[in-house]
Amino acid sequence: DDLVDHSDEEMWAKEPFRDKRLCVKTARPFNAETPPAEQVRHFDTPAELFYVRQHMPVPDLDGSCHRLTVLVEGEGERRLQLSVDELNRFKRQEVRAALMCAGNRRSEMNLVKPVKGLSWRTGAIGNAVWGGVLLRDVLLAAGVSDKDTEGKHVTLMGADMDATGTYFSTSIPLSHALDERARVLLATSMNGAPLTKDHGHPLRVVVPGAPAVRSVKWLQCIKVSSEESPSHWHQRDYRSFGPSVSWETADFPSAPPVYSLPVTSAVCSPEDGDTVRPRRGALHVQGYAYSGGGAKIIRVEVSTDRGATWREARLRSDSAPPREHYSWTLWDVDLPAAGPQMEIWVKATDSNFNAQPENFRDIWNIRGILSNAYHKIKVNVEQ
Amino acid sequence: DDLVDHSDEEMWAKEPFRDKRLCVKTARPFNAETPPAEQVRHFDTPAELFYVRQHMPVPDLDGSCHRLTVLVEGEGERRLQLSVDELNRFKRQEVRAALMCAGNRRSEMNLVKPVKGLSWRTGAIGNAVWGGVLLRDVLLAAGVSDKDTEGKHVTLMGADMDATGTYFSTSIPLSHALDERARVLLATSMNGAPLTKDHGHPLRVVVPGAPAVRSVKWLQCIKVSSEESPSHWHQRDYRSFGPSVSWETADFPSAPPVYSLPVTSAVCSPEDGDTVRPRRGALHVQGYAYSGGGAKIIRVEVSTDRGATWREARLRSDSAPPREHYSWTLWDVDLPAAGPQMEIWVKATDSNFNAQPENFRDIWNIRGILSNAYHKIKVNVEQ
Ligand SMILES: [Mo]
Ligand SMILES: [Mo]
Repeated sequence: DDLVDHSDEEMWAKEPFRDKRLCVKTARPFNAETPPAEQVRHFDTPAELFYVRQHMPVPDLDGSCHRLTVLVEGEGERRLQLSVDELNRFKRQEVRAALMCAGNRRSEMNLVKPVKGLSWRTGAIGNAVWGGVLLRDVLLAAGVSDKDTEGKHVTLMGADMDATGTYFSTSIPLSHALDERARVLLATSMNGAPLTKDHGHPLRVVVPGAPAVRSVKWLQCIKVSSEESPSHWHQRDYRSFGPSVSWETADFPSAPPVYSLPVTSAVCSPEDGDTVRPRRGALHVQGYAYSGGGAKIIRVEVSTDRGATWREARLRSDSAPPREHYSWTLWDVDLPAAGPQMEIWVKATDSNFNAQPENFRDIWNIRGILSNAYHKIKVNVEQ
Repeated sequence: DDLVDHSDEEMWAKEPFRDKRLCVKTARPFNAETPPAEQVRHFDTPAELFYVRQHMPVPDLDGSCHRLTVLVEGEGERRLQLSVDELNRFKRQEVRAALMCAGNRRSEMNLVKPVKGLSWRTGAIGNAVWGGVLLRDVLLAAGVSDKDTEGKHVTLMGADMDATGTYFSTSIPLSHALDERARVLLATSMNGAPLTKDHGHPLRVVVPGAPAVRSVKWLQCIKVSSEESPSHWHQRDYRSFGPSVSWETADFPSAPPVYSLPVTSAVCSPEDGDTVRPRRGALHVQGYAYSGGGAKIIRVEVSTDRGATWREARLRSDSAPPREHYSWTLWDVDLPAAGPQMEIWVKATDSNFNAQPENFRDIWNIRGILSNAYHKIKVNVEQ
């Protein structure tokens, strides 16, 4: 778990204002979900409603003083220092991308067998248009070679610090950082406005299609080397284990770090347990679907008979082509009302034709990440 | 179904010699699987053991006379004619890639509810090192722009012809053809030797990570235009439908063409129904796993208790990084023998952390393609 000194009031004195509509999971550090109804109300989630996942107190950075250090290790070691203004002289790019916590929907996996981590429901994902410059362009300007990427990594360090004095950091493979279609950004804007404090002001990384933990906020240092980040966030978390691995048998060094996300979907409206009133005999049902790694959602299906039959939902998607499609997809469908209770299942298929698993049992993992089985809710229907 | 005149003996007079070990599904056109034990014996499948999927008689082409036509439609329409020697002056490239029929493992989906198509078991996949030149390089030389790909397609036409006089053809999106990491090849060699007749001599396409139908053999023409291939192979086949779509309700024009393949795996040795003799109390079990779209297999798990617990298999993989990893992965595991009968399940996870679905019911489709649920076999154990 994150090491945070809860007794030191001063650390928390500069926390930003938060919208009251967010569903708070923990206050310090601040972790909160977007309310489901707000998720489907906006294709691009407004910054003030975007879920927040902090590990530590929010750093209070001044955009005009802030400097990014770019360090390239190895023969002829190089070091660049860039202000945010200097960074923005690289070619400006925009990417529409969802960011999703690797632990989104953990609460459902937790029902199968307890897992360790914040009990996120379906609200730890949002979608936005991110503006900035390509990490690729900055690395090439720093003298990094496109040809020599094997075994190399890019460590990304934030300005948020834990109680031991360690800055947050993680890393991604250099080949990923340099892939033009991966569109890894050093972002300064979100939905056309400067980044807010909770979302990384003045500078953050956005690694489209990857778990949001790789999209380091309050970015202060980039290092290219032959080592993955040594931080415990990178070494002891966000790795993939099978369902038969326990905390006792887990071997973190040999477990694959998670750099992409599988296909998932959720019903956002109505919510589990709601009582709904049909309109002209039908329920209007809405939700999102998403797949990482550049895949696009090609189909969302909904069942009210526990999978015996499926109905296709209407999709609202970004125009980016598959292979570099990083946005979520919103969907909606009208279901014939049949009371007094209805069970609603949703599943999505992506452009690699991967589908969600039906159950959590066989994807269960100690950390409760990548929790992408069918979303199943029950609602009461007014007669 | 393919239109082939079976009465015209002359059409079939020049069919190549085939290895007797192949498991023949249909003789004319020739369709045959690799025997499972041979799949896991070689990381790169020898050409003579590589599964064969033909739609028509095999064309008899002369490599020194053969010409490839490259046609770029639109303003300032361009046309290139290239001999195989001229083509090989582009930069030579090698890609290790599995090719898998979209219908591989159809026989298992067919057990849930009948589907239409050749009843492939697990043998319609092989792995090879393909040598040739990048389609990207040839298209750029023909004046195609990297910037203007939206809505454009590359139609690939073979020299195999059906009974109506129509050449085989299909298409892929231009953005896919131009993606450097997609590594779409115009191939002239397989495992270091010239292509054999059954595998496209003298020139074929290899679209790594896509259903093998896109890897057009005996390539004679490439056309860049704003239309997908009009052929019935492209328009009326290899499209994705949900489980509740019937032949009566299927709308082919709006169904997504399949340009990638989901994660799959199979047990190859022992085979379903075999009687096996344990060695030192264990069964040695071997198979393959594969995921399309450039994803790499990161874990293969085997269960002998119907999914209650899972054991990780050892993996043998190609060294290409995830995001441009097109080879299959071979795996093996030793399982404690427990007779008289054992049920063995296998499932794989790929580098996007997609997993296979447990059952076929919810991925069932009229054409029986993309049949990637867990592979489940039963073996008898000698006491
Ligand atoms: Mo996360
Ligand atoms: Mo196929």
